[in-house]
Amino acid sequence: MKTFNEYLEIVNKEIKAIPYPQTPSNLYEPISYTMALGGKRIRPVLVLMACDAVGGDVQQALKAAVGLELFHNFTLLHDDVMDNADVRRGQATVHRRWNSNVAILSGDTMLTMASQYMCQVPTEHLAAVNELFHATAIEVYEGQQYDMDYEHRREVSVEEYINMIRLKTSVLLGCACKLGAIIGGADEKTAQAFYEVGENLGIGFQLQDDVLDVWGDEATFGKEIGGDIMNNKKTYLMVNAFKLANEEQAGRLRRWYTDSYAMKQEKVPAVTRIYEELGLREIADKAIEEYTQKALSVLETIELSAEAHESFGALAASLVKRNK
Amino acid sequence: MKTFNEYLEIVNKEIKAIPYPQTPSNLYEPISYTMALGGKRIRPVLVLMACDAVGGDVQQALKAAVGLELFHNFTLLHDDVMDNADVRRGQATVHRRWNSNVAILSGDTMLTMASQYMCQVPTEHLAAVNELFHATAIEVYEGQQYDMDYEHRREVSVEEYINMIRLKTSVLLGCACKLGAIIGGADEKTAQAFYEVGENLGIGFQLQDDVLDVWGDEATFGKEIGGDIMNNKKTYLMVNAFKLANEEQAGRLRRWYTDSYAMKQEKVPAVTRIYEELGLREIADKAIEEYTQKALSVLETIELSAEAHESFGALAASLVKRNK
Repeated sequence: MKTFNEYLEIVNKEIKAIPYPQTPSNLYEPISYTMALGGKRIRPVLVLMACDAVGGDVQQALKAAVGLELFHNFTLLHDDVMDNADVRRGQATVHRRWNSNVAILSGDTMLTMASQYMCQVPTEHLAAVNELFHATAIEVYEGQQYDMDYEHRREVSVEEYINMIRLKTSVLLGCACKLGAIIGGADEKTAQAFYEVGENLGIGFQLQDDVLDVWGDEATFGKEIGGDIMNNKKTYLMVNAFKLANEEQAGRLRRWYTDSYAMKQEKVPAVTRIYEELGLREIADKAIEEYTQKALSVLETIELSAEAHESFGALAASLVKRNK
Repeated sequence: MKTFNEYLEIVNKEIKAIPYPQTPSNLYEPISYTMALGGKRIRPVLVLMACDAVGGDVQQALKAAVGLELFHNFTLLHDDVMDNADVRRGQATVHRRWNSNVAILSGDTMLTMASQYMCQVPTEHLAAVNELFHATAIEVYEGQQYDMDYEHRREVSVEEYINMIRLKTSVLLGCACKLGAIIGGADEKTAQAFYEVGENLGIGFQLQDDVLDVWGDEATFGKEIGGDIMNNKKTYLMVNAFKLANEEQAGRLRRWYTDSYAMKQEKVPAVTRIYEELGLREIADKAIEEYTQKALSVLETIELSAEAHESFGALAASLVKRNK
């Protein structure tokens, strides 16, 4: 097994080597711009790690790894159009820098490029890899649709929220792990266990994102703190707050929630105070811990080298204990 | 071989049988709405016809045929967002009836569903079918990008225009024919010849569309006559007009082209008059005839039953001699 950074280097080198035609430049420049923005590259690294862990040849999984990162970045590109977001990874989003037509069409192209990369696996795995990739992609779209639907609903249950982030975020991490395992030659039971490892890590990962939006350090996190609160975004904290608040707290919460003119320097601390009164930081930390433990206990059921177990354990810890 | 309508019936039955999950309804209702709008279904019929012509089992090509129609309808859905179009096949476009976010995400879902269908071919053809489908899809996006780029350019050469419609429209008809031939078990040379048949028919088909917009019968064509003229759309007629016009005609053409307040009942007949002065109807008809003849002469090089030759010949004639 290699370190996270060694896998990352392999992935980044392959991403840099993606060939983009010169023309039409309005189609391909936004794609190379998006892929150069960086990001944690967790999904492609997971593909390589899982492949390596089951004793496979990492090189055989590399194209699929890049395909998954292309897919992930395509979803971000289209999500940014739908959310009308200005900034992604500290840079202007594609629809701001170009326009939304360019963003739609470049995104479509990235999705098909993702499929092209996904087909560059050993022939014996082609059918299984495609089946998993497509089923996961559809779940990601469903998650995004629920996310948009929930914006217009006041009441979203904790279960609905968890299922939404499972679809929107976690299944892709599950898919990454399972893809690596399949290409590495694992049997179906092992591959499925890898899926569950990734899926549970993914839920912990998203919950940690919700926590960092409130209690993170702006400089380290790289995003504005309180963005979710200002946007009234349904998060694990928000849906739990509405569930656990007493009448007085619910009143305060609802007031901030419906006050479209609230100033950031007042609203964010006020809502954070309610979250803290309700002990939501501890509740969230506990949930994150549980999902991580679930991932690790599934990992325990897989027969792997001690080194592989250690690598995944370290990655799991870093994903949920991250501060950025 | 069967008749066009018999293939059409097989295709429509399979399209009706596409299973859509109940939720999230904002994701799946627009897809089933779009697929129920109808259309000529030329692409899936071509898949079945080519498969049948080379002696293949039409049932084995049916899923790929539906996949191609899903893909085609996905491109229309996203194109309608980009063109801000209100009406498609006499009904409200998805982004009008729902909203553009729904249209973007439903379109993404249709593209992945198309890929899912495309993977339901006999395993021995999986790699070739995917390779062709993806390469074609990328070309279609390139064509759409050129189409959008050309909107902002006054001068587009006839060669550029033909290449744009080749990418945007014709390669998908070429792909349809070649897919059918591949799945039907044809050798590479035969499959490639089928591609060229479809590609040349596709160019003739698009040129005929340009002609119908000007000289078609509104009731039969099903679209408003003169829509391209009113939208200053680059068409075969428009790019040839700018190429062939004398100074006086070019002046008139430019005046109508830049007059954003021109009334339809004045602009459409005036521009049509210029087209007629330049003999563009005859020039277009001749080009359509040439592309059709090219398709038929490639068809001649393929060893097929007399019945198969006749079927494709009849289809070619109906595509370019259509009035709707």
